[in-house]
Amino acid sequence: MSDAIEDFDAVDLIRIKRDRGELTTPQIRWLIDAYTRGYVGDEQMAAMAMAILLNGMERREIRDLTLAMIASGETMSFEGLGKPTVDKHSTGGVGDKITLPLMPLVACFGVAVPQLSGRGLGHTGGTLDKLESIPGWRADLTNEEMFEQMRAHGGVICAAGSGLAPADKRLYALRDTTGTVEAIPLIASSIMSKKIAEGTGALVLDVKFGSGAFMQDIDRSRELAQTMVDLGTDAGVRTTALLTNMNVPLGHAIGNANEVRESVEVLAGGGPADVVELTLALAREMLAAVGQPDADVEAALADGRAMDSWRAVIRAQGGDPDAALLVARETHTVVAERDGVLVEQRALPFGIAAWRLGAGRARKQDPVLHAAGIDLHAKPGDAVTAGSPLFTLSTDDAGRFDRALDALDGAYRIGDSGDPVLDGGPLLAGRIS
Amino acid sequence: MSDAIEDFDAVDLIRIKRDRGELTTPQIRWLIDAYTRGYVGDEQMAAMAMAILLNGMERREIRDLTLAMIASGETMSFEGLGKPTVDKHSTGGVGDKITLPLMPLVACFGVAVPQLSGRGLGHTGGTLDKLESIPGWRADLTNEEMFEQMRAHGGVICAAGSGLAPADKRLYALRDTTGTVEAIPLIASSIMSKKIAEGTGALVLDVKFGSGAFMQDIDRSRELAQTMVDLGTDAGVRTTALLTNMNVPLGHAIGNANEVRESVEVLAGGGPADVVELTLALAREMLAAVGQPDADVEAALADGRAMDSWRAVIRAQGGDPDAALLVARETHTVVAERDGVLVEQRALPFGIAAWRLGAGRARKQDPVLHAAGIDLHAKPGDAVTAGSPLFTLSTDDAGRFDRALDALDGAYRIGDSGDPVLDGGPLLAGRIS
Repeated sequence: MSDAIEDFDAVDLIRIKRDRGELTTPQIRWLIDAYTRGYVGDEQMAAMAMAILLNGMERREIRDLTLAMIASGETMSFEGLGKPTVDKHSTGGVGDKITLPLMPLVACFGVAVPQLSGRGLGHTGGTLDKLESIPGWRADLTNEEMFEQMRAHGGVICAAGSGLAPADKRLYALRDTTGTVEAIPLIASSIMSKKIAEGTGALVLDVKFGSGAFMQDIDRSRELAQTMVDLGTDAGVRTTALLTNMNVPLGHAIGNANEVRESVEVLAGGGPADVVELTLALAREMLAAVGQPDADVEAALADGRAMDSWRAVIRAQGGDPDAALLVARETHTVVAERDGVLVEQRALPFGIAAWRLGAGRARKQDPVLHAAGIDLHAKPGDAVTAGSPLFTLSTDDAGRFDRALDALDGAYRIGDSGDPVLDGGPLLAGRIS
Repeated sequence: MSDAIEDFDAVDLIRIKRDRGELTTPQIRWLIDAYTRGYVGDEQMAAMAMAILLNGMERREIRDLTLAMIASGETMSFEGLGKPTVDKHSTGGVGDKITLPLMPLVACFGVAVPQLSGRGLGHTGGTLDKLESIPGWRADLTNEEMFEQMRAHGGVICAAGSGLAPADKRLYALRDTTGTVEAIPLIASSIMSKKIAEGTGALVLDVKFGSGAFMQDIDRSRELAQTMVDLGTDAGVRTTALLTNMNVPLGHAIGNANEVRESVEVLAGGGPADVVELTLALAREMLAAVGQPDADVEAALADGRAMDSWRAVIRAQGGDPDAALLVARETHTVVAERDGVLVEQRALPFGIAAWRLGAGRARKQDPVLHAAGIDLHAKPGDAVTAGSPLFTLSTDDAGRFDRALDALDGAYRIGDSGDPVLDGGPLLAGRIS
């Protein structure tokens, strides 16, 4: 950047936020620039992050923070593509494989869908981990490959380049070790800086609430959604958000290979009702954002157009859409102890159990077991009989079953017909624009 | 320590305090132990310090924190001395040389006074810097030398050994760079961990408030004083505190050599009224704490016993009590512009001006100019006439006068007879026990 940056003292800025003051635009620009260059230390940024978490930020400060993080790295533009672009971002949940059927479904309407994704950490899975269970598929594309694929096939799901918002990368890792992940200004600016830097024209956010989500409380999720919609709007990105329920796992599959399998079922016109419902709702939202509010997305699933798009995109990234997916060496099935109705199935413990089976990772550098995970044979509200299978755990190492089952202690409950089903209400709980 | 320490996760503990929870005794012990050993990082401790600053700590948590910092290093004991020990600690102010006349005054009543002191940083001076303006005097004594001197002469003023509360040392430096200095639980545990580890039997705290103090607000100072008195009491140290006014510089001298000169005046039975008043009040408080509530401290100043004690102690540490003190090469005197009454003289800008003249240091490793400082010729309430001297700046480098005078812009004001004097009220504002 050619314009000179005014010089500040990190301690002064921390004290302003600590004392519930507002940071100015030049102060925020300086802070992020100095942090990126290592002139502001991690210990100073950690104190600042805690002060932001506890004292909040004004809308203008969050916008400045987002713009400063964008300015820390490169930006991309899809204007040369000749078609509208729309992206989707989910705040993450258990069994959330929606990107897989959604990307080809939207792309088959002549829209470019750049899905720059990450790998999973903790109990929420990562889109790249799921797709890497397809033999031959690769996540790392050059910018040129990404453009060429979007031009030819509309959609791409690949790893976000390290050049986008490097300040966010450093701050994100710091928040993880300093108990400052849950600050709405920091979550919102982290997500939106990458999406705005990426250069998408429109963005649909899937902001989850409930026991398996990042934020359990719907009001906090609504606040996060509104903050991100405001940020996108302020930056000229057409942004809307759906608030969706993550008290219960999404679909029947939690893991990697099994989630790909379930996604292909949806693309084939089948699949679990909740996965189909959310895929269609997000597809309608994305297509409306690029001027196709009446696109018949159900037809595109039913007549195979979405499936064709999927196969083309997977093949373009080296994957074989017809290859058999890995199957785990060991399985363990839990059955119903009595007749009744499944009245509770809590997302968080099922996410943790799948993680312990090997589907997720505790540290960035850990590998995942692509065939590990959980398949649910019953969902809340379903009638069950004594001895009927409730769910199956899969892994390559039978020694993992015990700790996974520990996590599931108290995570589900069979009640009597007429008992209330504790699923936290409907899947779609609100829309923010 | 032989007892095993339970293992915790730093992020979990940060989240507890962030969410306004209470940390348990084992959690606090683990945190400080792990921080001392480098297993908890500075960035994690910075986030914790900010959470403590904003969300506070219960009395039990502050006690645990103090005990954990004591346990991080060595402890001393003065039990073998055969006389009672009493220490004084001031939270620091402008022109605060009270330790110098106070230590020999109390010591001459047969009491041991271990004054483990520090060097100055920023606008408040350090006791060791002041004494080092006496030719030959040395601050660094071994534990054996310190004991021997207390046995022979009662008093000692020397550098605190690095073995006392090393966790505090690391945390103190971190707070300085992360905007977390002002947290009462952290200030109180920092001061009291060193004093309790030192092994004194009784302790009198001089907790200052006002523009030249660490805490401007008297209510916050009272809270800090009460917290420290509670900590001392809980640890079996007889502890009381005086709340004293630091809106106006203490005495006429601000610097190093000139403060020694003023202290010697007090020991000779003269000196400024406020310095004498505070020295006597603290001496009475200290002697009462070791069973001599009726000690005639005024007589000990008047009849030369305190002066004899001073000379013996200075000589024991290699200093020559009769040597001429350094005089600055350059002076600059500011005079009254008109007849009237000095109605305002703010401590903070005078402290900053003395610092800029070279009396203090900006970084730990900087040297100080022992002859630099300010001598006040008038105090608030004094009548002045046009052309009469208000104060004299001294330094070895005339180039420093401009920035010192900048700091003094608006720092003092001449009003008319009958105008209110803005000195923040009486010197002694309260007592906490």
